[in-house]
Amino acid sequence: MSKTIKLAVHGAAGRMGQRVVALAADASESSAADFTVVAAIDHAGHPKIGQDAGTVAGISQIGVPVAADWPGAADVVIDFSLPEALDACVEQCVANAWPLVVATTGLSEAQKNSLANAAHSIPIVWAPSMSLAVNLSMRVAQQITTALRDVAGGLDIEILERHHRFKADAPSGTALKFGELIGEAMADEEPVMHVHGREGHTGQRTRNEIGYHAIRVGDNPGEHTIVFGMLGERIELNVAASNRDCYAAGALAAAKWLVGGNDGQPMPAGLYNMFDVLGMADAAK
Amino acid sequence: MSKTIKLAVHGAAGRMGQRVVALAADASESSAADFTVVAAIDHAGHPKIGQDAGTVAGISQIGVPVAADWPGAADVVIDFSLPEALDACVEQCVANAWPLVVATTGLSEAQKNSLANAAHSIPIVWAPSMSLAVNLSMRVAQQITTALRDVAGGLDIEILERHHRFKADAPSGTALKFGELIGEAMADEEPVMHVHGREGHTGQRTRNEIGYHAIRVGDNPGEHTIVFGMLGERIELNVAASNRDCYAAGALAAAKWLVGGNDGQPMPAGLYNMFDVLGMADAAK
Amino acid sequence: MSKTIKLAVHGAAGRMGQRVVALAADASESSAADFTVVAAIDHAGHPKIGQDAGTVAGISQIGVPVAADWPGAADVVIDFSLPEALDACVEQCVANAWPLVVATTGLSEAQKNSLANAAHSIPIVWAPSMSLAVNLSMRVAQQITTALRDVAGGLDIEILERHHRFKADAPSGTALKFGELIGEAMADEEPVMHVHGREGHTGQRTRNEIGYHAIRVGDNPGEHTIVFGMLGERIELNVAASNRDCYAAGALAAAKWLVGGNDGQPMPAGLYNMFDVLGMADAAK
Amino acid sequence: MSKTIKLAVHGAAGRMGQRVVALAADASESSAADFTVVAAIDHAGHPKIGQDAGTVAGISQIGVPVAADWPGAADVVIDFSLPEALDACVEQCVANAWPLVVATTGLSEAQKNSLANAAHSIPIVWAPSMSLAVNLSMRVAQQITTALRDVAGGLDIEILERHHRFKADAPSGTALKFGELIGEAMADEEPVMHVHGREGHTGQRTRNEIGYHAIRVGDNPGEHTIVFGMLGERIELNVAASNRDCYAAGALAAAKWLVGGNDGQPMPAGLYNMFDVLGMADAAK
Repeated sequence: MSKTIKLAVHGAAGRMGQRVVALAADASESSAADFTVVAAIDHAGHPKIGQDAGTVAGISQIGVPVAADWPGAADVVIDFSLPEALDACVEQCVANAWPLVVATTGLSEAQKNSLANAAHSIPIVWAPSMSLAVNLSMRVAQQITTALRDVAGGLDIEILERHHRFKADAPSGTALKFGELIGEAMADEEPVMHVHGREGHTGQRTRNEIGYHAIRVGDNPGEHTIVFGMLGERIELNVAASNRDCYAAGALAAAKWLVGGNDGQPMPAGLYNMFDVLGMADAAK
Repeated sequence: MSKTIKLAVHGAAGRMGQRVVALAADASESSAADFTVVAAIDHAGHPKIGQDAGTVAGISQIGVPVAADWPGAADVVIDFSLPEALDACVEQCVANAWPLVVATTGLSEAQKNSLANAAHSIPIVWAPSMSLAVNLSMRVAQQITTALRDVAGGLDIEILERHHRFKADAPSGTALKFGELIGEAMADEEPVMHVHGREGHTGQRTRNEIGYHAIRVGDNPGEHTIVFGMLGERIELNVAASNRDCYAAGALAAAKWLVGGNDGQPMPAGLYNMFDVLGMADAAK
Repeated sequence: MSKTIKLAVHGAAGRMGQRVVALAADASESSAADFTVVAAIDHAGHPKIGQDAGTVAGISQIGVPVAADWPGAADVVIDFSLPEALDACVEQCVANAWPLVVATTGLSEAQKNSLANAAHSIPIVWAPSMSLAVNLSMRVAQQITTALRDVAGGLDIEILERHHRFKADAPSGTALKFGELIGEAMADEEPVMHVHGREGHTGQRTRNEIGYHAIRVGDNPGEHTIVFGMLGERIELNVAASNRDCYAAGALAAAKWLVGGNDGQPMPAGLYNMFDVLGMADAAK
Repeated sequence: MSKTIKLAVHGAAGRMGQRVVALAADASESSAADFTVVAAIDHAGHPKIGQDAGTVAGISQIGVPVAADWPGAADVVIDFSLPEALDACVEQCVANAWPLVVATTGLSEAQKNSLANAAHSIPIVWAPSMSLAVNLSMRVAQQITTALRDVAGGLDIEILERHHRFKADAPSGTALKFGELIGEAMADEEPVMHVHGREGHTGQRTRNEIGYHAIRVGDNPGEHTIVFGMLGERIELNVAASNRDCYAAGALAAAKWLVGGNDGQPMPAGLYNMFDVLGMADAAK
């Protein structure tokens, strides 16, 4: 196992931590060739302390118990814990020079600043969404916009998002981010207009607008569609979550990238996001 | 040929009239067994007067010239002309007791009243849209609403429509009609709220709302999607036009229904719509 | 609470039973007005025995413990247990004249026969899928087929289904059932041909075929799309599961129907399916 | 107007040539700023010879008649004629050192060789499809494949295509090209398996397969969907034609690129395709 990545999972007994352990360690997964789970850390009071982390995660035994102690050695750490547990994790990583993937959400501004500080001494990946598909789609959407913005007859871009009925704001932060990035790629002389729904005598659509449509139905876990309409044809780019495994897979991709970079070399200290992990830091520039 | 329906087409040299002739007469179409085109009428000054109506329509010869005269006999007339040509057509139909399908759009209120009057003596089908798919989908949408409105966890309904960038009003009349019919089927104690787009802190979706989303892209000829969202599952009903053949096919279906009704008997005098043609006049009651 | 339906849930501590309890009892759900959970039954060895069934289900306390004993009274029973636990449940229902919804899957032929026998004395709903959306969509698909099968230019029907990569058979049983029901509604002179995928020089599509397309991707929980293609327009009917709540909601709808039928009267003894629950036993006949 | 591109259209009175003229010359189109139509060429016997090319194309007059003669000067030529008319066009372009876009389809092998020869002296764009959206989507599909092929839990790719019922081969050439390019990007140790439809006991999906699904309905003008399925999420890339304007727009984009390249410099002699026009000649390498 000497060539695989030694992975420590912080928050290993939680819902997301379990999925990271399962995807990293399950022998039926191709990704299992990449990782060896060397530590499954959770807080001292957790009822699963002492149980095998594989069993806790619903796969077969992996020979690593859920423990409150940090390991002696690791190549990289994935944190899928809670905001209040993150600080101790960052401290451990800095002290041991371990690269860190922060997949915990709901960080305070102070914690984000603290991550930026820690990133002076270790490489850290942190992003509002760990989803590979969402981050990749954002870059792809920019690329399509750039390639087609001058097409004869013009290009019309609309953003549709769907979420469950309990979501209280609209459109989603992800839809707004899509719009911001697409707007940069439109690069028109006129400023981009962001239009939310349409009603009444709207007049003909203008070239410099992006339309947003926030659909709220049932318990939809989240879906974004970008429509690129032209004369005679259209492209649609659709990205949909079905469950939280996408965040575990994204965290593992980030961990692998921190250790091996794009060319086999470990990444230097710095604060990175999922665009960096995808090798698309400046794809649209 | 004695058993097929003798069809007269008014406006036969126009874009839509040609397609009615083609679909009714083309031997490669199963519908050709139903109809014999006996007259292809257009105004006296039309450059195609005297040419074979099949040739004009881009199929093989049918032995019927485009003519300005009305025929001696017909089982049914389809009018796909212009508002200013409609009155003479209605007059002929009343005088000859011919059933009439009015597929011409843009009628004045006076003409609609005149149709209602004529319908005291002959059976007439007239509808804002001749599309079978659109009319059928409206009834299906009502039926789904009625069947699922009391589902545990609740039912959320949203209406998406897509049209070309030149459409100056939103949402489409068809989307509003979908909403009106679905609203009737929701039959809640609370009045239905029609919500057009969402932005900002909207709060949780309410049970008695219908969301509308008017997407404007390229030269899209028209598409409507009704989303029925529940806990754990959803139904989507999507109806899309790709070209105007759907209106020709709808007019032919209406003509056949006027002659043979639902049980082989000709329809009595009266003003009918496409719900009647589909046998769904009161499907949702 | 005297007017609500007294519901006993068998298998109440299992994954599905918990969701039935939650949807029936959660005060934030409109369906909660319909039901009072009076018994939450599971096997004597279950670790949750004695705990409040609401707490077990992840909602607030409902004052009913998970118990191994059958209650003194109930209006209806939902069984979401295991095949080996079903027989005892049926016995109890027959002995007490309780209507029964069987939502447990994987029944043996002997058990299906036993259900048919029990249905001589009590009303029972049993169906291969409890999903309201799937069952409703089947009837809707038949209705669309019947309405459009004679359209000028013809109607082409294709069935797409998507499931996770682990599914070992294709197409899904649900897709085949859609095809069987649609085939009945096509009612052509020629027998319906069921075509699975297309490759090579297939020649022009024939009128009497139904195409099937079995897509296998990721962990997709199940989705079916019926495409109705005509000249100039198309209808698509799409039904997709996102999680198992749809089966709990379907079971509750069945329970309500057993108690109140379509007109407030309890259903007589008999074996029913979800088409009956939807009031669509012979919608396509 | 001195800075716009002087465009000669060969086959200008044909269906596609008219659309090139209209999109290039219509003042309401942003692309009109890029082009001045200086010649509208068609064969000497064409009934529209001598009429204004704008009028023929259904827009307002542009002051250029449809003519059988080649112009004295042009910056670039678009050929949308017939295979039998192409040779003369290539000869003119070589003789005058005019860059050429060949959008005529159905070329013989001899003609393709002849194009390759001509490309030694002039720059020529020729591609099986002039659609910007299709060509761009092919590169995007490769890029998504490359970015996600090693995701934890694996990536499953399926290709769906829809065409009208008259299409006699399956899957479409475009679908096969998508599969070939995606297969290159999968770059697995095992060879890629191309699976067409699924039926029976197929067993679990394998990692190195691409599934194809050829849907045949109505008069669908052509649509391709690439599904990228992972654990917990998916991306779908959909590209659909609605009418032939997309080929006119693609030809204009190619013409503009021949004259101005990616950096304002005219392209040197050579045979190019639409990937070159999009600046994606080796995007996936």
